[in-house]
Amino acid sequence: MYDGILDEMIPFFKHQYGNPSSIHKLGRLSNTAIKKAKKQIAYLINSKPEEIYITSGGTESNNTVINSISCNKYKNHIITSAIEHDSVLQSCKKLEQNGFRITYLKVSDDGLIDPQNIAELITDKTYLVSIMHVNNEIGTIQPIHKISEICHSKNVLFHSDAVQSAGKINIDVQNSKIDMLTLSSHKINGPKGVGALYIKTGVKILPFIMGGGQQNGFRSGTENVANIVGFGIACKLTTDNILKNSTHCNTLKNYLSYQILHQIPYTKLNGTQELRVSNNLNFSFLGVNGEDLINKLDEHEIFVSTGSACKSNTKKASHVLKSMGLSYERINSSIRITIGIHNTMDEMKYVVVVLKKIIEELRHDSPFKYKYDFK
Amino acid sequence: MYDGILDEMIPFFKHQYGNPSSIHKLGRLSNTAIKKAKKQIAYLINSKPEEIYITSGGTESNNTVINSISCNKYKNHIITSAIEHDSVLQSCKKLEQNGFRITYLKVSDDGLIDPQNIAELITDKTYLVSIMHVNNEIGTIQPIHKISEICHSKNVLFHSDAVQSAGKINIDVQNSKIDMLTLSSHKINGPKGVGALYIKTGVKILPFIMGGGQQNGFRSGTENVANIVGFGIACKLTTDNILKNSTHCNTLKNYLSYQILHQIPYTKLNGTQELRVSNNLNFSFLGVNGEDLINKLDEHEIFVSTGSACKSNTKKASHVLKSMGLSYERINSSIRITIGIHNTMDEMKYVVVVLKKIIEELRHDSPFKYKYDFK
Repeated sequence: MYDGILDEMIPFFKHQYGNPSSIHKLGRLSNTAIKKAKKQIAYLINSKPEEIYITSGGTESNNTVINSISCNKYKNHIITSAIEHDSVLQSCKKLEQNGFRITYLKVSDDGLIDPQNIAELITDKTYLVSIMHVNNEIGTIQPIHKISEICHSKNVLFHSDAVQSAGKINIDVQNSKIDMLTLSSHKINGPKGVGALYIKTGVKILPFIMGGGQQNGFRSGTENVANIVGFGIACKLTTDNILKNSTHCNTLKNYLSYQILHQIPYTKLNGTQELRVSNNLNFSFLGVNGEDLINKLDEHEIFVSTGSACKSNTKKASHVLKSMGLSYERINSSIRITIGIHNTMDEMKYVVVVLKKIIEELRHDSPFKYKYDFK
Repeated sequence: MYDGILDEMIPFFKHQYGNPSSIHKLGRLSNTAIKKAKKQIAYLINSKPEEIYITSGGTESNNTVINSISCNKYKNHIITSAIEHDSVLQSCKKLEQNGFRITYLKVSDDGLIDPQNIAELITDKTYLVSIMHVNNEIGTIQPIHKISEICHSKNVLFHSDAVQSAGKINIDVQNSKIDMLTLSSHKINGPKGVGALYIKTGVKILPFIMGGGQQNGFRSGTENVANIVGFGIACKLTTDNILKNSTHCNTLKNYLSYQILHQIPYTKLNGTQELRVSNNLNFSFLGVNGEDLINKLDEHEIFVSTGSACKSNTKKASHVLKSMGLSYERINSSIRITIGIHNTMDEMKYVVVVLKKIIEELRHDSPFKYKYDFK
């Protein structure tokens, strides 16, 4: 987390422990803190504070949006992409089992969506288009403003999962046609277990978690006050430093990408170079098993992932890389490197040296040794 | 929160910030911490750790259970009670709109459920019986072991919302026929925004929040590591002190109840005296508006609620008191007093003195003044 966030959260774990729904003084203190946090979250995407609903994280926000189709009696069709996060895809698959129709858009081999495809696929039965702003595995930036214009002109709701883009790319929902937007706290250096859903004024969707009627009845459950406070401050800090942070990460990313591609042969960058978020790199090191590579890097205190962190334990091939048409071999040799605002240029230099050495070692024992003429 | 919990949580907000699904070292550290917490949660109810699933709180746990009926093609009936928490009732109402049949059991005028009613209502279409262990407004303890035996003998799933009872009454799921149990962290002095659902080995229910496949695919979303760690410790401390704490609260409760009923005329205890949890009192002070009373007590640093905290802002009459058959006047004059483990006998004495004085003042201006012959 950002320095300083925890200090602001601590009182809400200790003496300011009131339930924000209680009308007594302790309750009101918690309620005021949540209102302040909603303002800070709204500041990140230039929404109104009353358009922000707190959830337990990006997964719940995405589930809420996709499941809201069941409130609509006349429309039964959702358009999404094949490279969305599983919190969108799994919810869509469940809806399919219940008779809804889902279109999963294909992406180009560099991981991009063509908005024109969406325009052609919308029918009068289409309730929602849900396209993520930035992909979590390959960092590609989708043309969500163009897509939202198309949806708006055809009277279809548009949602974007902005978990990976918020705080890295400027988002201004007031000057856009985006109806709903998903945010996650821990992706912008706030505490885990909290996220938000932006819902534009006038857009009506069903509550997903139901009960005591908190947050104007839209999301029930006693609010996670301390973490919400932390999320708010993370939004404020992120917004105020967006240019500085993305410049910093871009500099490191560009250096690392150039060095890796030039110093390590048989390496492919997965996803477009140009339309890519500042903190993401994804490479295939042919002939190397991605998981072996992660374990070796781990020994050198370099922490990277294969595909998405969520799926690390499942050993399934990445659905994102698959839908880009990559070979199994290339998918199997891929790793994702995420660059944080606390990383330094010296660390990038260290990564290049270690990575080069480990890959040489792994390739020395690789079954693909002769195929690629590894040294 | 309990003293000491926060100290254990802090590392997971700071340097041990890894995503528990990541396979690198930081991820594994978080994962180990969650495993430890699940053991501590299991210890509270004598379950196996692998029977514990982490949620964002009691509301989500209850929603998950009720919505799981949609995975069953042959059974379309749920039995619950009219005094359940709204996270059960609202989910049931949504199911009713989708063609499921829900039976809402009535309670006696002291707030108790008759298990024999349940036995008579179960049909071969009944999927689930969901009855809370302890009511959140009136503290009545329901005969869940008897009910679970009935359900088991008729091959119907039994779920209990134990948010208000866990840590106050011993629960041993291994030696019971309870299939599912809802827990909440902040009700046992742990952090907010985290809860659990116990699911007995062999019981199959649908995931509710879907996505990256965390927690063996049952509950997706990056785990709220720090808060889970805090919840675990709260469970450990609660379990180890259950007798001491409930004895302490019972002593204070019995004193307060006796003094209030004997010193303040026209006062009624809502809910049975005998089968009542150690920390709950609920009185009607006839002729007084409950909300006015809360506001006056607030000025004296005494924090109580009308009905449930969740509903404080809605101004709706308590559905619990209504279903007990209480008059509107009695409901409107009711307040709930919750006794915490940190409360003292001196505080109880102070409450009696202040309460008596405020009620005399409020009754002096009450429109019911002549009806009751208030002084």
